[in-house]
Amino acid sequence: MVDTAKGTRDIVPEEAILFQEIQDIFKKNFELFGFNPLQTPTLELFETLSSKYTGGAEILKETFQLSDQGQRKLGLRYDLTVPFSRFVAMNPQLKMPFKRYQIGSVFRDGPVGSNRLREFTQCDCDVVGTKSIVADAECVQLFLQAFAALGLDVEVRVNNRKILDAMMNTLQISLDKRSSVILAIDKLDKKSRKDVEEEIYTLGVKKDVVAKLFELLNLQGSNTKILDGIAAFVGKDAEGVVEMRELLSYCSQKNVLFVPSLARGLAYYTGSIFEVYAPGTSVTSAIGSGGRYDKMIGSLLGSTQEYPAVGCSFGLDRIMAVVAEKRKQRVKSVVKVFVIPIGLSLDKVWPVVMELREKGVATDMYFAAKSVSKGLDFANAYKIPYVLLIGEDELKKKKVKLKDMDSGKEEMLSVKDVVKRVKK
Amino acid sequence: MVDTAKGTRDIVPEEAILFQEIQDIFKKNFELFGFNPLQTPTLELFETLSSKYTGGAEILKETFQLSDQGQRKLGLRYDLTVPFSRFVAMNPQLKMPFKRYQIGSVFRDGPVGSNRLREFTQCDCDVVGTKSIVADAECVQLFLQAFAALGLDVEVRVNNRKILDAMMNTLQISLDKRSSVILAIDKLDKKSRKDVEEEIYTLGVKKDVVAKLFELLNLQGSNTKILDGIAAFVGKDAEGVVEMRELLSYCSQKNVLFVPSLARGLAYYTGSIFEVYAPGTSVTSAIGSGGRYDKMIGSLLGSTQEYPAVGCSFGLDRIMAVVAEKRKQRVKSVVKVFVIPIGLSLDKVWPVVMELREKGVATDMYFAAKSVSKGLDFANAYKIPYVLLIGEDELKKKKVKLKDMDSGKEEMLSVKDVVKRVKK
Repeated sequence: MVDTAKGTRDIVPEEAILFQEIQDIFKKNFELFGFNPLQTPTLELFETLSSKYTGGAEILKETFQLSDQGQRKLGLRYDLTVPFSRFVAMNPQLKMPFKRYQIGSVFRDGPVGSNRLREFTQCDCDVVGTKSIVADAECVQLFLQAFAALGLDVEVRVNNRKILDAMMNTLQISLDKRSSVILAIDKLDKKSRKDVEEEIYTLGVKKDVVAKLFELLNLQGSNTKILDGIAAFVGKDAEGVVEMRELLSYCSQKNVLFVPSLARGLAYYTGSIFEVYAPGTSVTSAIGSGGRYDKMIGSLLGSTQEYPAVGCSFGLDRIMAVVAEKRKQRVKSVVKVFVIPIGLSLDKVWPVVMELREKGVATDMYFAAKSVSKGLDFANAYKIPYVLLIGEDELKKKKVKLKDMDSGKEEMLSVKDVVKRVKK
Repeated sequence: MVDTAKGTRDIVPEEAILFQEIQDIFKKNFELFGFNPLQTPTLELFETLSSKYTGGAEILKETFQLSDQGQRKLGLRYDLTVPFSRFVAMNPQLKMPFKRYQIGSVFRDGPVGSNRLREFTQCDCDVVGTKSIVADAECVQLFLQAFAALGLDVEVRVNNRKILDAMMNTLQISLDKRSSVILAIDKLDKKSRKDVEEEIYTLGVKKDVVAKLFELLNLQGSNTKILDGIAAFVGKDAEGVVEMRELLSYCSQKNVLFVPSLARGLAYYTGSIFEVYAPGTSVTSAIGSGGRYDKMIGSLLGSTQEYPAVGCSFGLDRIMAVVAEKRKQRVKSVVKVFVIPIGLSLDKVWPVVMELREKGVATDMYFAAKSVSKGLDFANAYKIPYVLLIGEDELKKKKVKLKDMDSGKEEMLSVKDVVKRVKK
């Protein structure tokens, strides 16, 4: 039996049309924000993918490996960040800061579920070469502008790893436990507070320390009020507090929320972290995320030079689900006008078809030319909005019969008027 | 040392910008012709890729193989036609004819040269489910319209495998030799006529037969005259002659040339074949190609059902080379306006930057904020057309200084007027 490989799927026309629409809107906004397109290959040297400071052991286990005719070890990229770092390393002539976006397939040979595929699309914007918090603020603003352009109401949650660090520092949680504490906090959206607390106790952190930590993580009120509460504990000049204050000064929209418990599991984040949600939809997990990773690129390159970087990532599959949910009707075909000959051969309707295409109307014709009713069935199956019926009579009158498939209304029009009507 | 995998390359921003522009123009025209987007995965079951009637032994040798955690044998697709066939087989509910386009990376683990990469982009339009020559004519017209939209003067060469067959039939060249004769004729653009003739002699075809064959292949004059010449030899009702006459009736443009010696190596073509050239440029090989392959999909599926199909393929890399050659200047960045603060911190210019982006002007700012002259260097390096200089003075006057980087002209304008000026 013919099949797709496990964990892969075809994006059929009705999904691909929406997918492309979303990508086009995103690309436009990425470019408005000064991000340039970059396209790295799907295949990378396995050595590049397995460098330290990349995804870690977990992701490496899920990296597809292969080799070429020369027995070189290769792998399929599992994200777009490592190839981006490799590109930066290979191009020392790049003027910094360098901003790029990339949309492409990535691969992970892991367990397959309804939300987990082995081949899926990532969509990333990153800037390398600046420590300015303005670059972090840009990511937040890009999320806001891009999702607004899509017609989605979103909430951007922000935090800073340095704030979590400062809290743990003041609470005298020892350095070796901190990343485990962050990993535990990161599970707050999946586990109960009690379970997370238990997990932190088992790390050897005392109950009163955990209680104070959770008091800070659960501060309520405006962004400023929460930040003031934390500043009162860790000090107003703590780096994380200063950075967050600056970030918030650039992001005063009320759907930007400072959430001190936002942790994000990935070890490489060093400063700001972001997550985007679509409240009021069935998609409860983040549809976008990102953050600052000042050490990753340098470490990946084994370089003493620092490559400060910050980026944001759009979860295209989930975004597609959210948009699809909002739309009542899915477009099933790009075709606007479907031409059906009535008792004529295709060569008679061909000039009309070609004229419409030249004038910018997506047009197709009923090749099978079996019967008018079968032609209408075809147009219906693909939900094509207009049908053009052309018979001997119409040809004589130099008119065509335009049928609006939604209302059922029919009109005799010149081809020129069809263009006007359909383009409206 | 950090490197790309052999035979792969990064498409840097200045190339990616052009690449995207070309793809957008193509996509628009594919959709005007009623082709819908379809996206199949990069990974396929090796079994699918190695079925008979696909690329043949040559291509199979160059297929990248890998396996997943479940030890399933997989491969990276080497073209988009086999996955398309697999998709058709898996979706018997599709209303025929079904038209799709796909643009995506394909992989061949073969020798690497300046014109041969191991990962490159294919761009295909195909229709399955109709034997109508109108579908073949559409391919020719799509080539013409898409390349015209790109601003390229092209020549579309057409032929029909059945004409070559009819000639060989009339010349009594035995069936077992015919595909070798076609392969030899296919080399006419690389080898001399004499060498090709020699190759055919060695197949055991007699000199006078080869002489007559070449007389037919080299007929000169209008498309009609050439076809009449061939018809006089093979008969005017020969299938190939009838099909070519019909095709030409839909394609009367003078840059559509009937070339009887056009052979195209691939074994799976059964009727019309096409090649597109860009005369007067440095790219002498075909920038587009295609043809009818009525038997391939059914055979691939081991089905007794026939899946008549015809398609056209756009050689994106070569097309990019031709377009780049025609353009005097390459766009190096999508950014239209680069904002440089004069002795101000970034937060002072931020509102202007954000206003321009909201109003649809691709804008970036000089994060490093080192000095005005370094900012101008940055803008120059990326050939950004406009710079906006903002200092204390400008802020007071609620104006900004717009510098046209091409003419060097500077003007004091409101942000609103900057939008107007730049969008022109």
